[in-house]
Amino acid sequence: MPSGRHFLQIPGPSNVPDRILRAIDFPTIDHRGPGFAEVGRAALDGMTWVFGTEGPVVIYPSSGTGAWEAALVNTLSPGDAVLMYETGHFATLWKQLAERLGLNPLFIEGDWRSGADPDAIEARLKEDKAHAIKAVCVVHNETSTGSVSPIAAIRRAIDAAGHPALLMVDTISSLGSLDYRHDEWGVDVTVSGSQKGLMLPPGLSFNAISAKALAASEQARLPKSYWAWDHMLGPNEKGYFPYTPATNMLYGLNEAIAMLREEGLSNVFARHARHGAATRAAVRAWGLEVLCRNPNHYSGVLTAVVMPEGHSADAFRAVTLKNYDMSLGNGLSKVTDRVFRIGHLGDFNDLMLCATLAGVEMGLRDAGVPHKAGGVQVAMNQLGRASDTGRAAAE
Amino acid sequence: MPSGRHFLQIPGPSNVPDRILRAIDFPTIDHRGPGFAEVGRAALDGMTWVFGTEGPVVIYPSSGTGAWEAALVNTLSPGDAVLMYETGHFATLWKQLAERLGLNPLFIEGDWRSGADPDAIEARLKEDKAHAIKAVCVVHNETSTGSVSPIAAIRRAIDAAGHPALLMVDTISSLGSLDYRHDEWGVDVTVSGSQKGLMLPPGLSFNAISAKALAASEQARLPKSYWAWDHMLGPNEKGYFPYTPATNMLYGLNEAIAMLREEGLSNVFARHARHGAATRAAVRAWGLEVLCRNPNHYSGVLTAVVMPEGHSADAFRAVTLKNYDMSLGNGLSKVTDRVFRIGHLGDFNDLMLCATLAGVEMGLRDAGVPHKAGGVQVAMNQLGRASDTGRAAAE
Amino acid sequence: MPSGRHFLQIPGPSNVPDRILRAIDFPTIDHRGPGFAEVGRAALDGMTWVFGTEGPVVIYPSSGTGAWEAALVNTLSPGDAVLMYETGHFATLWKQLAERLGLNPLFIEGDWRSGADPDAIEARLKEDKAHAIKAVCVVHNETSTGSVSPIAAIRRAIDAAGHPALLMVDTISSLGSLDYRHDEWGVDVTVSGSQKGLMLPPGLSFNAISAKALAASEQARLPKSYWAWDHMLGPNEKGYFPYTPATNMLYGLNEAIAMLREEGLSNVFARHARHGAATRAAVRAWGLEVLCRNPNHYSGVLTAVVMPEGHSADAFRAVTLKNYDMSLGNGLSKVTDRVFRIGHLGDFNDLMLCATLAGVEMGLRDAGVPHKAGGVQVAMNQLGRASDTGRAAAE
Amino acid sequence: MPSGRHFLQIPGPSNVPDRILRAIDFPTIDHRGPGFAEVGRAALDGMTWVFGTEGPVVIYPSSGTGAWEAALVNTLSPGDAVLMYETGHFATLWKQLAERLGLNPLFIEGDWRSGADPDAIEARLKEDKAHAIKAVCVVHNETSTGSVSPIAAIRRAIDAAGHPALLMVDTISSLGSLDYRHDEWGVDVTVSGSQKGLMLPPGLSFNAISAKALAASEQARLPKSYWAWDHMLGPNEKGYFPYTPATNMLYGLNEAIAMLREEGLSNVFARHARHGAATRAAVRAWGLEVLCRNPNHYSGVLTAVVMPEGHSADAFRAVTLKNYDMSLGNGLSKVTDRVFRIGHLGDFNDLMLCATLAGVEMGLRDAGVPHKAGGVQVAMNQLGRASDTGRAAAE
Repeated sequence: MPSGRHFLQIPGPSNVPDRILRAIDFPTIDHRGPGFAEVGRAALDGMTWVFGTEGPVVIYPSSGTGAWEAALVNTLSPGDAVLMYETGHFATLWKQLAERLGLNPLFIEGDWRSGADPDAIEARLKEDKAHAIKAVCVVHNETSTGSVSPIAAIRRAIDAAGHPALLMVDTISSLGSLDYRHDEWGVDVTVSGSQKGLMLPPGLSFNAISAKALAASEQARLPKSYWAWDHMLGPNEKGYFPYTPATNMLYGLNEAIAMLREEGLSNVFARHARHGAATRAAVRAWGLEVLCRNPNHYSGVLTAVVMPEGHSADAFRAVTLKNYDMSLGNGLSKVTDRVFRIGHLGDFNDLMLCATLAGVEMGLRDAGVPHKAGGVQVAMNQLGRASDTGRAAAE
Repeated sequence: MPSGRHFLQIPGPSNVPDRILRAIDFPTIDHRGPGFAEVGRAALDGMTWVFGTEGPVVIYPSSGTGAWEAALVNTLSPGDAVLMYETGHFATLWKQLAERLGLNPLFIEGDWRSGADPDAIEARLKEDKAHAIKAVCVVHNETSTGSVSPIAAIRRAIDAAGHPALLMVDTISSLGSLDYRHDEWGVDVTVSGSQKGLMLPPGLSFNAISAKALAASEQARLPKSYWAWDHMLGPNEKGYFPYTPATNMLYGLNEAIAMLREEGLSNVFARHARHGAATRAAVRAWGLEVLCRNPNHYSGVLTAVVMPEGHSADAFRAVTLKNYDMSLGNGLSKVTDRVFRIGHLGDFNDLMLCATLAGVEMGLRDAGVPHKAGGVQVAMNQLGRASDTGRAAAE
Repeated sequence: MPSGRHFLQIPGPSNVPDRILRAIDFPTIDHRGPGFAEVGRAALDGMTWVFGTEGPVVIYPSSGTGAWEAALVNTLSPGDAVLMYETGHFATLWKQLAERLGLNPLFIEGDWRSGADPDAIEARLKEDKAHAIKAVCVVHNETSTGSVSPIAAIRRAIDAAGHPALLMVDTISSLGSLDYRHDEWGVDVTVSGSQKGLMLPPGLSFNAISAKALAASEQARLPKSYWAWDHMLGPNEKGYFPYTPATNMLYGLNEAIAMLREEGLSNVFARHARHGAATRAAVRAWGLEVLCRNPNHYSGVLTAVVMPEGHSADAFRAVTLKNYDMSLGNGLSKVTDRVFRIGHLGDFNDLMLCATLAGVEMGLRDAGVPHKAGGVQVAMNQLGRASDTGRAAAE
Repeated sequence: MPSGRHFLQIPGPSNVPDRILRAIDFPTIDHRGPGFAEVGRAALDGMTWVFGTEGPVVIYPSSGTGAWEAALVNTLSPGDAVLMYETGHFATLWKQLAERLGLNPLFIEGDWRSGADPDAIEARLKEDKAHAIKAVCVVHNETSTGSVSPIAAIRRAIDAAGHPALLMVDTISSLGSLDYRHDEWGVDVTVSGSQKGLMLPPGLSFNAISAKALAASEQARLPKSYWAWDHMLGPNEKGYFPYTPATNMLYGLNEAIAMLREEGLSNVFARHARHGAATRAAVRAWGLEVLCRNPNHYSGVLTAVVMPEGHSADAFRAVTLKNYDMSLGNGLSKVTDRVFRIGHLGDFNDLMLCATLAGVEMGLRDAGVPHKAGGVQVAMNQLGRASDTGRAAAE
C-alpha cells in the first residue's frame, strides 16, 4: 500500500471523481417504483445530449464490448458483410466479434499509426455495386494507438459512394472527451461505454440509434434478447428498463452528466486537446516517437509512445508502477511491449498531467531507457501558452 | 424526501449494506495491472464457494437476464429443444428469451402456486426417447410467486428418466439466501445475479459450469461473443477478464463474500427460513392467503400474498409507499394487481422484518383492505420461538 | 457482525442518514481559501434559521459538553451564582461543570420526572433581591429522563421576577426535533450539539447568542480562549474561523440543514411528537410506566421507561442488543439500571419506530420482564390515527 | 467546479486518503455500548504508539487549538510563568492563548527563520533560580515557517539548567510526519491534531502525558472541565469517554493508524524528508529563498518560500488556485504576503510532489514572479537519487 494517490493513467478506466463514486454509494432503490423513473429518464435524456442526438439511446448493464455486440445483432443478419477498418487492436477485436456472430467482416488493413482513411472506405464501397455491405464500422478513438478517425469525413465518403450501408462508430474511449455529434455527422449506431470520458467505473454501455438503424433492426435476423433494442425502447419511454438496470451506476451517470454540463462540453474537449498537445510535446522532447503519425488524427484521450528499439515497454511500465505508483497502458497485440500508452482523459487537469509526465520521465530514467530529460518542462511551457488561449477563449 | 430509512422490501434488489456500498466507493484500478489479479481471483474463488462447486464460475458485467442468455448460448444450437417449467413470470421470461434466441422451448405449464414438479419433468423426459431435449431449465426460487423448486429431486428425476439433458437452474433470487449446491445436486449451469442474496446493487451476473456443460459448449452453435465462456476461462485463471470487468462491483462482491463467510452460509439460510416462516404466520393472521400452496416449496426469500377479491394490490402498494416509505413487490403478468410480494432477503434482520410487516399491516388498514389486525404480533411470537431454536442450533 | 441494519435507538447520537454521511465523505478543503467561505457562511446562516435567531451563532469543533462550558465562560466571572434546575443527569453534569469552573451553582432540586418548574424559578429569583444570580440555566429536553422544560414560561417567570439574569438553555437533544425559538422565547445563550436532531455524528457544538449575552461577555472574567466568542465572531462574518474548523462535519451540517428545510421544521416537530405519543401508548400497553410524569413535559425525542421492581434495565438492554441488534439508552446516575430509554429522534420514521418497539417488546419477553404483549399493535393503531391527522394538517 | 483533483498543498489539513474518508463514512454507533470499547481502545492504544509513549494519551473532539489549551489548563495555575519560544505564528498564538488563560508567558524572541535554540532556553532557565517558570513550551514543527525545533536537545538544555519546568511540545503539524518520541525525549505534554500527518479531517486533538505532568495536574488550579484529564483517564481505561466522543473521526483515526503501521513510521519519516529535500532543491533552482535558514531545522512537512521583493505572495497564490486548482499556504502575521508555504505532508507521494512543484513553477510564471525555470526538473533529479537510497535502505 504505497502512500498518496495512485495515478491511473491508462486510457480508461479513467480516474473516477469523488462526486461520482459518492453518487454510486447510495442505497439501491426499487427499479419499478415511481422514484426510479426520474433517475432513468435523467440518464437517458442526458445521454442524448452527450451523444448529440435527438434519437433514442439505450443503456446496457455491460462493458463496452456488449455495446459492440448490441450494435451488430440489432441491425444485421447472419452472413451480412460489414466493412471494418483496422485502426488497431480494438478495431480488430470488434471485427473478431463480428466473425463470432456469423457476420462477414471485410477488413481494410491499417498500419495502426493513423485513423481510418475515408478515401479507402469510399473506394471499397464503390466496388460494392450490389450493396452487399450492410454496415461500415469504425472506431472513433482507437484506444490501442491514440489515433482518431474522421467520422464526418467518413460519412461524406459513404455518401459520395452512394452506398446505403449503415455507419457504426465506436466511441467507447472518445465520448465525453473528443467532439462527437451523432446526428450531425450522420452516424447510425454509436457505441460507447462508461469508464472513459464519462468518468464512471466500468459497467455501463450505450447505443445511440438513428432512425435508419431502427428501421434496419426490424429486419435484422441475428438472434438477440439481452441486447434487443425493441425490448428497451418501450419501457425507456417512461424511464424504466425491461430487466433490472444497474441502478447505482445510473446514479453515477447522472452525476457525470451534471459534471459535463457544468464544465461545458466544448471546454471538456478543449481541455483534452490541450493535454494531448502537451503530452506529445513532452514525448518529442524526450526524443521518443508518438505512435500516431497523422497530425490530423492525434488524440486528446491518450498518447501511445514507441519505445526505442531494444527496450521493453512492459519493463518500463513495471518500473513506473513500482517506483511511482502510476499505471500506464500497455501495448496490445501487434505492438505488445513496443509501445506504452499515456491516458490523459476524463476527470483530469494540468497538474495531474504534469505528475503523469514526471512519472514517465523519471520512469524512463529509472528503467534505463535512452531519452533526453526535459519533457515535463516542455509540457509545462506548452500548458502555459495553451492555458492562456484556452482560458481567454472560454471567457 | 421522507425522513428516515426507506424500506426496500421488494424481492430484490435487496437492501445493500453499508459495507458493500463503501467497498464499491473506492477508486477503480487498472484491470490489467498486477493488483487487479487479487481482486479478480478472490471474486472468482469466492463465488465457487457460494455456488458449492469445484468447477469454473464466470462473472459477467450484466444483469441476471444476461446470465440466462449466457447459459443458453454457450451450450445450445439453433432449434434445440429445451424443457422449461412455468413456475411463474421469470420462468416465462426465460422461455421467451429462449424463443428469441431461436431455441425450441417445451413449456410444462404450472399454476404459479408451487415450484416445479420433478415427476412432470421425469414423465416428459421419458417421452423424449430420441433425446431431442438438450436441456432442462428450472427456476430455483421463482421471484414472482415465492415458490421454490426442488432441484435435487429434479436431478434425480432426470437421472431416473435416463435422459442426458443438461440441467440449468436459475438461482438469481436464491443464491446466498437458500441452500444451494451446484456440484452435489448435479446442476450443469447455474445462473445467478448480484442484487438479491449477494446484497450488491444490480450489475453482475454469474454462470457456474459443470464439466458436462463445458463439454457441450464446444459443440454449441448459437452465435455468442460477449457471453462466450471460452473467452472468459483463460484470463480468469489468473484473475483477469477478456474485456473490462465491472471493477467496483467486484470490490463489492468480495465484501459480500466476506460477509457471507462471517455469518456462515448455514446461518444465512436459517435466517431466511425463519423470516419466511414468520412472514407467512403474519399473512395468515391477517386472514390473507400465501400464493404458494405447497408447504415444501415455501420461500425464505419472499412471500407473495393474494389480495382479497375486489381489492387492488397496486393501490395497496401505493399506499404503503406513500404512507410508510416502503417498496413492496408487485404482481407480475398473470397475477398483476392480484398479489403483492414481500421481500425478506439479503442483509436483513428481525427488526427490519417487524418493520416490514408493520408497514404491510398499517398499509392494509390505510388502504381499506379487509383483514384482521395482529399479524405483526403473531410474527413477533414466531420470531421469538424460532429465535431461541435458531440461536440454540447455532451455538 | 449480525446481518441487517443496526437500530441505534439511544437518544443520540441518532441514526445518521446516508446523505449526511456521504456529504462528510468528501475531501477536506483549505479552510482559508475562497471556496471555504461559502461552506462556512452556509453553515452559520443555516444554524441561525434552526435556532430561530437573528443574532450570531458560533460553531465549535467539540462535543456538546464544550458548548455548555462555552456558554458559561463567555458570560460569567469566578464565583458568580447561577441558578440551575435538576431535571436529571445532564442538568446535574452541567451544574458540576459550573462548579469545576469556579462558579456558584444554586441547584433547584427536581425528582427527575418532569421538566423545570417556572414557578420555582420565579420564586427563587424573587428571593435574590441583590441580583447575585447571573444566569438561569435550564435543559430544554433532559436526555436522561425524557422531560421537556417549558422555556417560554421560564422566560416569563424570569421577567415576572424582574430579574436581570441571563437565560441559558441546553438544547443538545432537542434542537431540530422539538419546537425551539431562541429569539421569540428570549433566550440569551442556547447550547446545542450535532448528534441528535441535527442527525450528524458527534463533533460539532453550538452557542446561539443574544445581544444581552454578547454584552455580558465583555465583562465576563472567567479565563477562556478556545471557547471565546470574540475570537469567533470576526472571522465568522466572512465564513471563516479563528482556528481550523471541522470542515467535513460542516459539509454534513449543511446537508442536515438542507434536509430540515426540505421536510420543514414544523413537520419535523410534528413527526417527533407523533412518535413520542405512539411510544408512550406502547409503554402503557405493556403495563410499564413512563418516567416523565407531567404530560405537558412529554418528549418527542425519547421516552424513558421505568422497569418493574426487581428487574434490571441493563440486563434487559443487553438482551435487546444481543437478540435484536438494537441499542437502547441506559439509566444514568440516580436511575441507573432502573430505567431504559428509547430514542425516537432524528432521521426516523414510522416503520423504524415499529421496529424499535418490536425490539423492545420481544426483548421484554426474552429477558423475562413482566409485561403485557400488544404494545406494538397499540402504537400501530396510534400511528395510523396520528398519521391521518398529521398528513391532513400538513396538506 | 474545475475538472480533476484539487491539490491541497497547504501544510494541513492534508489530503485525506480515501481509506480514511470511507472509514469515517460508516454509521455512528452507541458510544456507551460494548462495540464502542474496541474502537476507543484501538484509537487510544494506537496513539500511544504514534507518540512513542507508554503513558496515557487523551483524545479530544476539538481542533488542535483545544489541545494547546488542555496542556496548559491541566498543569498550571493562574499567574504561572511559562517559557515559550517565538518560532513563528503558531508559537505566538499559543503564547497569546496562555495570556488569555491568565498565565504569564515569557517569550524568547525568534526571527521566524529557525527552530527554537536550546542554548537560549538553557540560559533563560538558569536565570530562573526561583523556578518560577513552570513549563517550557515549544512548537516542534512551526507550521508558519517550516522550521523544526530540536526537542531532544531542548530536553537536555532543561536538564543542564537543572530546572524542574515541564516540557510541553506542540506536534500538531509534525506527528506522523517527523520523527517524534514522547518518552525517549522526556516530553511532559505533547499536543497534537488530526489533520496533518495523521491524514484525517480536522476535529480531533491529543495530549500525551508524562507521569510528571500527571502529578502536576493534581495541583493545577486553572479552571477546567472539558479539557480535564482526570475526567478522561478513568473511562479511557476501558475505551470509553466521559462525554460523547467524535465516533466517526475515531473510525478514521483507527484507519490512519493502520496506514502508518503498514507503511512503517520510519518509512513515513524518510518519505517526508525526501520530499522536503526535493522541494528545497526546486526552490533554489527557481532562485528563490527558503524561509528556514538553519539546515538542521529544515522541515519535511512544509517549505515556506520567501517571495522576491516587491511581489505579493497572496497574488501568486491566487493565480495557482485559479489556473491550477492548487491551494498553497499563505504567509501569516509577520510574513503576511511575504512568503508562501508548500505543504508536502500526509498521504503524499513523488508524483503528487512533482505536480505540486509544477503548479508552483507555472504559477510563478503566470503571476510574473521573477524566477528561473527548471525547479521541477531539479526535484525530479533529486527524487531519483533519494528514491534509490530510500528504497535501498528500506529493503
